[in-house]
Amino acid sequence: MPHLVILYTPNLERDTDMTALCRALADTMVGFRDDAGRAVFPIGGTRVLAYPAAHFAVADGGAAGRAAGTHKGVDGKGDGGDYAFVYLNLRMGQGRTDAVVKAAGAALQAVAQRHFAPIFDKRHIGITFQVDVGTEAFDSKHSNLHPLFNKN
Amino acid sequence: MPHLVILYTPNLERDTDMTALCRALADTMVGFRDDAGRAVFPIGGTRVLAYPAAHFAVADGGAAGRAAGTHKGVDGKGDGGDYAFVYLNLRMGQGRTDAVVKAAGAALQAVAQRHFAPIFDKRHIGITFQVDVGTEAFDSKHSNLHPLFNKN
Amino acid sequence: MPHLVILYTPNLERDTDMTALCRALADTMVGFRDDAGRAVFPIGGTRVLAYPAAHFAVADGGAAGRAAGTHKGVDGKGDGGDYAFVYLNLRMGQGRTDAVVKAAGAALQAVAQRHFAPIFDKRHIGITFQVDVGTEAFDSKHSNLHPLFNKN
Repeated sequence: MPHLVILYTPNLERDTDMTALCRALADTMVGFRDDAGRAVFPIGGTRVLAYPAAHFAVADGGAAGRAAGTHKGVDGKGDGGDYAFVYLNLRMGQGRTDAVVKAAGAALQAVAQRHFAPIFDKRHIGITFQVDVGTEAFDSKHSNLHPLFNKN
Repeated sequence: MPHLVILYTPNLERDTDMTALCRALADTMVGFRDDAGRAVFPIGGTRVLAYPAAHFAVADGGAAGRAAGTHKGVDGKGDGGDYAFVYLNLRMGQGRTDAVVKAAGAALQAVAQRHFAPIFDKRHIGITFQVDVGTEAFDSKHSNLHPLFNKN
Repeated sequence: MPHLVILYTPNLERDTDMTALCRALADTMVGFRDDAGRAVFPIGGTRVLAYPAAHFAVADGGAAGRAAGTHKGVDGKGDGGDYAFVYLNLRMGQGRTDAVVKAAGAALQAVAQRHFAPIFDKRHIGITFQVDVGTEAFDSKHSNLHPLFNKN
């Protein structure tokens, strides 16, 4: 049931391996335990999806433009001066304690921060990570993934 | 006002016709009636948008990789072994009864399940369908679609 | 913290400059003031991301099809007859008054309406703008953008 969606500016595509970030986040979710040592996220229900925007604008215009655009950052850093932005949103089901939700958020945010550390020193970038606990009025799952991981 | 957004792993692109799924879901929404026989969704406000992810990770890594990747599933099924995932989210306006919301959700979930049935037996896939009733603080519509369907 | 995500049918891609819309919306956000003249949105936290759908269906089928499809609108307008749809969603942090949220929504909706005015007379299109005030259970920011705009 947990899914993590990443929306980001396409100017990051060439600078970082987003598939690796997806994998690192999923691994952290799969391995995340509460204080009692129980898995917080079911393995078969863990998924991370990442989407570069086709068009974007960040802040005052330093990064406006398309992925392939030639727009220069306002600070004259040129290609690397384009503002970048990553939004990570984890939607969880209800039923975990607030402490567990916040601990999971902190663990995943740390993964994202570590992933972007090499970029963070080189370009202007904002990374926001938020966790929503879903309040869906209807919820349905149809999956043959869960049985793969519940075989004992 | 109702819109349905589909987020999915790109490894499904070659195996299924997502435009056909969008159409089937929209048709079901357009034709959906409450117990009194009234249309639940306005025709001119019905829309379905589908987005394959550029990068993704599902579960423990069987499906990590890009759409064009050569990653094999953990179970050795090869190309078809990649884990797949589809998330369908319908956002509705307020004002319907909970029973109508749930009935609409069940009808649409059945459409999705039927659409993916031929795939479900062949590969590992999870399908989640959720309905959110929006709690927007501001809401504005500007459309010339509605008049096309309100001509009586 | 505010981010605005635009989801739209790909049949609009050739008719309008979505990067310009992103920029216009970001500029309006950056310049937006409350009654006391205070900036409502931090410059460094303002971002707009736009995503054309890969597959879609709108209303009763006039616009079903892919971006490159040859589907004709039900009214026989041909290429331009395809129904189009744009969904703009602004997610804001908590703490602003409802009046400020609604005023910001109205200002941004007006920008979108103005942007699409040349198209509105020529094709069938629906534009929906909604503002959500986030209720995230976890929230984390890691950014080197804000300092650029807080130098005094």
